Amino acid sequence: MRADGRQPDELRRIHITPHYLKHAEGSVLIEVGDTKVICTASIEDRVPPFMRGEGKGWITAEYSMLPRATEQRNIRESSKGKVTGRTMEIQRLIGRALRAVVDLKALGEKTVWIDCDVIQADGGTRTASITGAYVAMVLAFQKLMDIGKLNTMPVHDYLAATSVGVVEHTGVVLDLNYIEDSQAQVDMNVVMTGKGQFVEVQGTGEEATFTREQMNSLLEMAEHGIGQLVAYQKDVLGDVAAKIQG
Amino acid sequence: MRADGRQPDELRRIHITPHYLKHAEGSVLIEVGDTKVICTASIEDRVPPFMRGEGKGWITAEYSMLPRATEQRNIRESSKGKVTGRTMEIQRLIGRALRAVVDLKALGEKTVWIDCDVIQADGGTRTASITGAYVAMVLAFQKLMDIGKLNTMPVHDYLAATSVGVVEHTGVVLDLNYIEDSQAQVDMNVVMTGKGQFVEVQGTGEEATFTREQMNSLLEMAEHGIGQLVAYQKDVLGDVAAKIQG
Amino acid sequence: MRADGRQPDELRRIHITPHYLKHAEGSVLIEVGDTKVICTASIEDRVPPFMRGEGKGWITAEYSMLPRATEQRNIRESSKGKVTGRTMEIQRLIGRALRAVVDLKALGEKTVWIDCDVIQADGGTRTASITGAYVAMVLAFQKLMDIGKLNTMPVHDYLAATSVGVVEHTGVVLDLNYIEDSQAQVDMNVVMTGKGQFVEVQGTGEEATFTREQMNSLLEMAEHGIGQLVAYQKDVLGDVAAKIQG
Amino acid sequence: MRADGRQPDELRRIHITPHYLKHAEGSVLIEVGDTKVICTASIEDRVPPFMRGEGKGWITAEYSMLPRATEQRNIRESSKGKVTGRTMEIQRLIGRALRAVVDLKALGEKTVWIDCDVIQADGGTRTASITGAYVAMVLAFQKLMDIGKLNTMPVHDYLAATSVGVVEHTGVVLDLNYIEDSQAQVDMNVVMTGKGQFVEVQGTGEEATFTREQMNSLLEMAEHGIGQLVAYQKDVLGDVAAKIQG
Amino acid sequence: MRADGRQPDELRRIHITPHYLKHAEGSVLIEVGDTKVICTASIEDRVPPFMRGEGKGWITAEYSMLPRATEQRNIRESSKGKVTGRTMEIQRLIGRALRAVVDLKALGEKTVWIDCDVIQADGGTRTASITGAYVAMVLAFQKLMDIGKLNTMPVHDYLAATSVGVVEHTGVVLDLNYIEDSQAQVDMNVVMTGKGQFVEVQGTGEEATFTREQMNSLLEMAEHGIGQLVAYQKDVLGDVAAKIQG
Amino acid sequence: MRADGRQPDELRRIHITPHYLKHAEGSVLIEVGDTKVICTASIEDRVPPFMRGEGKGWITAEYSMLPRATEQRNIRESSKGKVTGRTMEIQRLIGRALRAVVDLKALGEKTVWIDCDVIQADGGTRTASITGAYVAMVLAFQKLMDIGKLNTMPVHDYLAATSVGVVEHTGVVLDLNYIEDSQAQVDMNVVMTGKGQFVEVQGTGEEATFTREQMNSLLEMAEHGIGQLVAYQKDVLGDVAAKIQG
Repeated sequence: MRADGRQPDELRRIHITPHYLKHAEGSVLIEVGDTKVICTASIEDRVPPFMRGEGKGWITAEYSMLPRATEQRNIRESSKGKVTGRTMEIQRLIGRALRAVVDLKALGEKTVWIDCDVIQADGGTRTASITGAYVAMVLAFQKLMDIGKLNTMPVHDYLAATSVGVVEHTGVVLDLNYIEDSQAQVDMNVVMTGKGQFVEVQGTGEEATFTREQMNSLLEMAEHGIGQLVAYQKDVLGDVAAKIQG
Repeated sequence: MRADGRQPDELRRIHITPHYLKHAEGSVLIEVGDTKVICTASIEDRVPPFMRGEGKGWITAEYSMLPRATEQRNIRESSKGKVTGRTMEIQRLIGRALRAVVDLKALGEKTVWIDCDVIQADGGTRTASITGAYVAMVLAFQKLMDIGKLNTMPVHDYLAATSVGVVEHTGVVLDLNYIEDSQAQVDMNVVMTGKGQFVEVQGTGEEATFTREQMNSLLEMAEHGIGQLVAYQKDVLGDVAAKIQG
Repeated sequence: MRADGRQPDELRRIHITPHYLKHAEGSVLIEVGDTKVICTASIEDRVPPFMRGEGKGWITAEYSMLPRATEQRNIRESSKGKVTGRTMEIQRLIGRALRAVVDLKALGEKTVWIDCDVIQADGGTRTASITGAYVAMVLAFQKLMDIGKLNTMPVHDYLAATSVGVVEHTGVVLDLNYIEDSQAQVDMNVVMTGKGQFVEVQGTGEEATFTREQMNSLLEMAEHGIGQLVAYQKDVLGDVAAKIQG
Repeated sequence: MRADGRQPDELRRIHITPHYLKHAEGSVLIEVGDTKVICTASIEDRVPPFMRGEGKGWITAEYSMLPRATEQRNIRESSKGKVTGRTMEIQRLIGRALRAVVDLKALGEKTVWIDCDVIQADGGTRTASITGAYVAMVLAFQKLMDIGKLNTMPVHDYLAATSVGVVEHTGVVLDLNYIEDSQAQVDMNVVMTGKGQFVEVQGTGEEATFTREQMNSLLEMAEHGIGQLVAYQKDVLGDVAAKIQG
Repeated sequence: MRADGRQPDELRRIHITPHYLKHAEGSVLIEVGDTKVICTASIEDRVPPFMRGEGKGWITAEYSMLPRATEQRNIRESSKGKVTGRTMEIQRLIGRALRAVVDLKALGEKTVWIDCDVIQADGGTRTASITGAYVAMVLAFQKLMDIGKLNTMPVHDYLAATSVGVVEHTGVVLDLNYIEDSQAQVDMNVVMTGKGQFVEVQGTGEEATFTREQMNSLLEMAEHGIGQLVAYQKDVLGDVAAKIQG
Repeated sequence: MRADGRQPDELRRIHITPHYLKHAEGSVLIEVGDTKVICTASIEDRVPPFMRGEGKGWITAEYSMLPRATEQRNIRESSKGKVTGRTMEIQRLIGRALRAVVDLKALGEKTVWIDCDVIQADGGTRTASITGAYVAMVLAFQKLMDIGKLNTMPVHDYLAATSVGVVEHTGVVLDLNYIEDSQAQVDMNVVMTGKGQFVEVQGTGEEATFTREQMNSLLEMAEHGIGQLVAYQKDVLGDVAAKIQG
């Protein structure tokens, strides 16, 4: 049994509030247990210089935490004057993951700016960001379709993410909260599509190693959890869901 | 009549959600019309090096906007690698204003970190930040008293802020929203105490000037609005309000 | 009586040396008591990107102190690699104040760069900068008129600034020197035009508050002092003064 | 068949020159095909502040490329004034991987600084860096043992890394060179120990996804390649190899 | 004949105003033709960390130009966020030159901060800075002796600097102004002591080369000019001059 | 006799490996005793903005050290976020020196990027960089001629550099290694052409001064050493040497 009473393969309660902010083309508040992230998708009518003239769009992401999202106040990256390595890893991951399910040619020369701002952190902020950002992005595309700026939904599959890990005494578990994460020997973030294909697998032994058998268990548990997350995304998207290609 | 139907001396709807985040000693979500700011107060058991050994506390503030708090996405200051002049002005103002009503000796050698993060902006974000941060700070002090880390509430008065301005065609108005703010000839931010004293008056002609008579009207309207804000703060604080000295 | 023998409403000795440097279009050395600031106005034949094509000019200011302008040597901002919040506040104030009395359309697509470099500081450096920068700017415009690059003097009023404050034991005083400034409970910087209108009022309680009555006294004393400063500016400008519109 | 004539599961020629530089405690030049990396291990007699007094050591890594290691000259990160996200990801990976096979308690309060400088790049620079840095680190520990600053070799297993991927037309291949890497649909970096356990698996679909079956093939091929790399490391280390615990 | 009517071996008019600023321990305004530099010497009662406990002092210099010291306004280094290579070269040169004539042991564990701020530039700003900074430093030492913080003048020789160069059509000339400097094929800065020894020789062909014979002429002309500069320094220092050791 | 057994006027063993890296247009590894520098020349088909349209080329240089090129590990400039003054001085010197022997008009609107990366340091890294960079640059020009992108070799003389100095007890010596350099009273870097003309002379007393006689000895010894370096460059360049103009 886990500290919060969950079964090893049980997700935390998830809730997504769509249209959370009034200015962004797409926005959600995603809550995964006590982890809360505001995800917005902003669409700009041009691409970065290195992509101009190719007739393709681009998706890029930024991630940040409020200073007091965490138990201890952390210093703002704007005060430090630089973005940490952890933040860079996460924002590169979010952008790459979303690009895997979007038809960039169908999007045309537009940039999608994803912003994931963690207002409260309790583990799994990067995977919650991906799951929420996907919904915010689809809502933004829908808004562009509504005002005639996009002809088709340029998304060919669902996309969600979760963490799995090997925690001392507890074994292989799904969707680690902060306490579990800090005790994990192996920590793996998995991003998958609605059709069950992998987009990203990042497994790390924390001053530890893991066997092929553990790897297999971890991947299966992730598959199970992501299936549930995708089902919930479909609920939240309602009518819009029908337009997801594939 | 104003665009949103308000009388010239009418505040926007205000709402403060206390205890908005679980980790911070004190936190609120303040909503003033469509302006929404998360204010947290974090308390650290030491003061900056230049104040050590004086037996006094310190209060400092940081202010930021989510990139998509605004109509157009604005670039993160962490990405720019520096904090803008506007942000610096605002965070200096918030810290200075709060220090005016706190007995820093009674606080002892502690630092209060105020974080104001605007999640949605519609004018008046700096004054909403002050009004909200005051409540978050009082809640944080109450929490320290509850756990025996502070003997008395080191606050000797209420504190709230609003904006007033001279808007073309409309004249002198209270609590400007974004549209009004961008059309104002004169823009004034006023911070006052519960007893009706001034803490800060910042009046600026925007490529314009103003007369002594206008100045007087502006100050009177601010006084009127801040009185209502303080009354609302008392409601929100409930029992805690009784401990505010003075 | 004040420490330096002045009456409460007495300015320090002011002296402006016009044409202080040979390269700038306009330049002065302004001395207000022991405060000495070199102010230059440089004119560039284009505006920043965000203003191009609007047929209007722009005025922007920078402010700095020599490291040993002060009692203790202060670290250069170029060594720190960033400009402090105080500096940013001051340079935004100077630029905003000057824009209030210039007809930016009559100026045309030009940028006026104001540089205020404090070579010796004894309180009131920001207000001395405004009073001096105004003269340097008018001299620069006159030079442009002399060489046929400008048809009319695009300035429609005089502009000067001073500080007022409430100092312990002494009460309300005009034009605070460094000692008075560091003891002031209330510190107010006021920028006014030659016609007696306000451009900027920034009043701050330093861990203190102030009443409406004090506010009124402060404003009256500022009005009195600025009248004298403007009269002196007219003397310094001589023939050029006749061209100031309004 | 692959463009350079290799079989799908064939590594490129590998060569490690031990003791490549005279000042570092441990150093190698590792060549994997045309990829050449100088790896050094420097040992400092203290740990970072956050670890002091815990009786444990620390390992941290830095990674860089000479500007002309690549086909096109890339701008130095020192000129840009900041380290890119890609560099940060790589240096975090190298440090984390090495820490997985070192007994930090046996090391004591020392910091191992790993520097990996790519002098010529042809794909796989991060995995070559790990394979080379491991040898440089062991040589540095040996040097400390020789001079009596360390009692036992604090390393409990071998460690090497390689890349595997899915390349269009060619299928699953081992040890991708630059051309293959730029054409890969799936790119996976795998770090394993001499005993065949995983330390890190980072698989990424490049605007693509991959199946569980492909995942399995990739992991098997990585296992095969890393076995050969570890065998070569043992050869290079000679006598020292006997001291690796485990 | 030179453009400004000087003989090839003729210095520009030099003037040094001692005690130019009230706060610094030592300060001068040095004018060499139209080049004007404020030099201050500030003395701090400690040395940088890398020198503590050695019983020796340190001398370090900073150099800057006001934005409008030059014909074209130059951007402040504080706005750029970094110090240029040219500035760094000059400040390293000034510090090194002064250290050559000071007995750092006799100074004791103190740091001398030299600040050279060019308020008007017309060539030779770095050599004027050295000549002026030397006087400011001696005045600062004298002040410390006056208040009993120093027993002897820790300076064992005079120090002055000038430029020499090879200018097209004109040949070898002394003390180049800006026009000559920009046309010079060879540019040489020379720092010498009162006894006629070299401290620093920096000769550069500007996309050109120079012969040994030209080198000799340049050095002789520099020697001649520096002799005159040292004589003038003695005049300015008056009684203090007698205390220079050696 | 010197510590390493050399005569006062004896160079260290020099070795240049041409075509050291595969991607750069020109590259060498230069070894001067234990000092080892990788020099590359990259050619870009455009010039910086300030030179466009003038029909001339540009040469610019960057210099860096691997962290463990030195006895003590030095912090990367990319980690510090800024380039030190020493590095800036060196890279400005390298670029300036090379420009003195290149006909920039014959080069046309191209930029030559020189990169000097010190992989092992034992004194004289800046002079080794110049001697090596010259060869890398000539090789790059030859490559452009081979592929028809340049008609003539735009180089009109050879160029090499060495250091000379006055070392306690030993006297005037040529080509100082690290130990000698750290004990030198006078340190002089000299850059000369194949025809024996000076390009740059930088002589510095290290908290010391030097006489005209010492200056002469130093220059003569430098002349002697550079003659040998140029002879070796000719050997390395082989057939290409015949194309150097002049």
